[in-house]
Amino acid sequence: MPMHEWSEKSLAALTRRLAGTYADGRGINLRGGAVLPDRVRVMEALDTLFAVLFPGLLDSHAVTEANLRPFVGERLDHAYTLLATEAEHAVRYHAGADAAAAEAPAEAERAVLALLDALPRIRKTLMEDVQAAYDGDPAARSLDAVILSYPGVEAIATYRLAHELYEAGVPLLPRMWTERAHARTGIDINPGARIGPRFFIDHGTGVVIGETSRIGRNVSIYQGVTLGALAPAKGQSLRGVKRHPTIENDVVIYAGATILGGETVIGRGAVIGGNVWLTRSVAPGTQVLMGKSELVFRPPRKKRGAEK
Amino acid sequence: MPMHEWSEKSLAALTRRLAGTYADGRGINLRGGAVLPDRVRVMEALDTLFAVLFPGLLDSHAVTEANLRPFVGERLDHAYTLLATEAEHAVRYHAGADAAAAEAPAEAERAVLALLDALPRIRKTLMEDVQAAYDGDPAARSLDAVILSYPGVEAIATYRLAHELYEAGVPLLPRMWTERAHARTGIDINPGARIGPRFFIDHGTGVVIGETSRIGRNVSIYQGVTLGALAPAKGQSLRGVKRHPTIENDVVIYAGATILGGETVIGRGAVIGGNVWLTRSVAPGTQVLMGKSELVFRPPRKKRGAEK
Amino acid sequence: MPMHEWSEKSLAALTRRLAGTYADGRGINLRGGAVLPDRVRVMEALDTLFAVLFPGLLDSHAVTEANLRPFVGERLDHAYTLLATEAEHAVRYHAGADAAAAEAPAEAERAVLALLDALPRIRKTLMEDVQAAYDGDPAARSLDAVILSYPGVEAIATYRLAHELYEAGVPLLPRMWTERAHARTGIDINPGARIGPRFFIDHGTGVVIGETSRIGRNVSIYQGVTLGALAPAKGQSLRGVKRHPTIENDVVIYAGATILGGETVIGRGAVIGGNVWLTRSVAPGTQVLMGKSELVFRPPRKKRGAEK
Repeated sequence: MPMHEWSEKSLAALTRRLAGTYADGRGINLRGGAVLPDRVRVMEALDTLFAVLFPGLLDSHAVTEANLRPFVGERLDHAYTLLATEAEHAVRYHAGADAAAAEAPAEAERAVLALLDALPRIRKTLMEDVQAAYDGDPAARSLDAVILSYPGVEAIATYRLAHELYEAGVPLLPRMWTERAHARTGIDINPGARIGPRFFIDHGTGVVIGETSRIGRNVSIYQGVTLGALAPAKGQSLRGVKRHPTIENDVVIYAGATILGGETVIGRGAVIGGNVWLTRSVAPGTQVLMGKSELVFRPPRKKRGAEK
Repeated sequence: MPMHEWSEKSLAALTRRLAGTYADGRGINLRGGAVLPDRVRVMEALDTLFAVLFPGLLDSHAVTEANLRPFVGERLDHAYTLLATEAEHAVRYHAGADAAAAEAPAEAERAVLALLDALPRIRKTLMEDVQAAYDGDPAARSLDAVILSYPGVEAIATYRLAHELYEAGVPLLPRMWTERAHARTGIDINPGARIGPRFFIDHGTGVVIGETSRIGRNVSIYQGVTLGALAPAKGQSLRGVKRHPTIENDVVIYAGATILGGETVIGRGAVIGGNVWLTRSVAPGTQVLMGKSELVFRPPRKKRGAEK
Repeated sequence: MPMHEWSEKSLAALTRRLAGTYADGRGINLRGGAVLPDRVRVMEALDTLFAVLFPGLLDSHAVTEANLRPFVGERLDHAYTLLATEAEHAVRYHAGADAAAAEAPAEAERAVLALLDALPRIRKTLMEDVQAAYDGDPAARSLDAVILSYPGVEAIATYRLAHELYEAGVPLLPRMWTERAHARTGIDINPGARIGPRFFIDHGTGVVIGETSRIGRNVSIYQGVTLGALAPAKGQSLRGVKRHPTIENDVVIYAGATILGGETVIGRGAVIGGNVWLTRSVAPGTQVLMGKSELVFRPPRKKRGAEK
């Protein structure tokens, strides 16, 4: 029976061979027992913060005046406990053998308290984001419908939380959070970006907002928009350089537009048309549209669609 | 110990501050104990309907002639129970203090029965959709492989169910369903769109089909296609207006094409090429292609790709 | 009470009607008790293989020298058990009434052993992929951050496992795996594609890599890139034909570029610019850029963005 052969000899042999590949000290190998952030707990912390940001909306509990304080207090405490541990793991893991590892608990705690302390401000900003989504979408029926079902809201709320941890210098966790939103929404906002209130992303699939982007107040973005770098493939040599554009207040960027470069500034109130490709700055109030697209119209002969 | 300080003084203070932000009666706040649809149950209802639409394929139960009736009956009953409750919550929540809230149970029940009653018809349509996917994709090996793994099938089946609830006037739920499909597949079909049978979406990531789109029979769409509005940022002022295009029977729309506007009609049998941007109607049978794209070819000197 | 009416008469009637639609023997119907691969177990096998490919990184276990062998051995054995059963179901289901069904257990086992045997090689290749992602992205802070959070790594690792099963001739399972990655990352790599080491996909949403694509070593691809077929809507008549391009070593393909056709070869070291649309071959070392895009700049008058 092959299965027995497998379970006795082949398994042992393959285990040996595979274990041998862990020995070279490169990236995807074990690190002598250092503990990484636990993905499940990191995401549970995010869900817990969402429950506080949108009370009674994203879980089935009816939140009332009567139970509001205990509801909020319990969740804040739970989020704190999860994050203080996982942020410490992240800091310690990242520091490696570095002396900085000793500072890990204090550094993690400072960062987590800064995030929690920012929650009232984040909630205020998110209310403005949700209002902007409702204002900007004729298919929106209510503010609650926007919160319950719009992927842009999930991506932006996740980004706003992640950005606080990013600013506080916590490694790994911010990107884990924004990549969860990316996986769920197709919207990829790097936690390093700086984004003002009343930010609206419609549909959202394919949106990419790079690490050093700066976005002002009341900006709307549609699916497939990239705020990117001019030559990203230059890689690590560009780390820390401002590589992504600046978008001023009241700008609308329609679907599929690409705006590249750290020196590129889209001036206040500009409207960037769909599929426009921009690598230079635009003055305030300007509309940028694609030139008359050269399309070829072939009248009916034998229909290609019917050949199959 | 900072942790103790947190759990005693800071926690209470932050809870107070955060609770204070719930008091202004705006969108993302509690609503005095009104119960929203429970996301978990709403999605369980969708999964239950999927089990009936594709019996024996999407769950591990072996469905046979012998157990078919009880299998179907049990699931229909379960879906009914979940949906009648959640649709009532949706109707009641949406009505708010409105007198219409009293009608919520009857209205919800009527809508759910209409959906269930439509299931035989939906199944018939989905069979045609699956057949179209198989016919249209050389990588498809069998009808079952299409159902088991094609994201387009999941998105279209979810849309067809959501559209029934949308037509029956249930708030919140239809969009919650289609946004789950959007999250899983990158395909964003508004439940208000009207779409004929033999609808095929290949790959699908980035597809957006707006609320007032009308799509005929035997239409194929590839990844990144938008059927959108001309000036969506005009927002709520456009609610109820036909803003999205009409696609007649037997049309193929290749990847990345954008078709905008409520007056735009793509005539029967037309083929729209990849990346084409259209804001006006196209006569039946026409092929629309991008003009010869002006590309710049720079021969090798110092390779940019090697600079990093 | 309408609910009672439903549960007695309407339920029975609808069950009868719906059950009647399963009788026509078409694609989305039961198959007399034949057992399909169980999706939950198929995905558990994938997760188990991931645990072995990236030990200690994607689960919370601290893997050390001391527990490495039992950790690896236990997971290999678990993956084997799951996959041998599910691959057998896939082979048997696909064979249908065919005499080949008798060969299902042996064929499944051979394929699964081939996959497991390839794991050391796959791990080596993935290490190179991760290194390439780190080298190529200025936002990357460490190799571990890349593994923990980059969707491209998940998509590529899933593809490399699925490709082994594809080459071994297992039906259904490879595509189920790559479609899970597609759902999570927006990156759609057909398991039939052949892709060399140091493959890097950044952001990734909307990437489509067709079944007969061939990709060399050290290739970088950005979001929204399609390696596709020229006339995919011709469907089943093209099955087995090389329909997708060949990308030679050291090529960079920027966001939104589309490269089509089985005869199209992108020569070594070429750089394909963003949004470029290519249906013909490119000589080695060439840079291909879009011609000066004809944009229309309208200076400020009454701002459209402010009309809402």
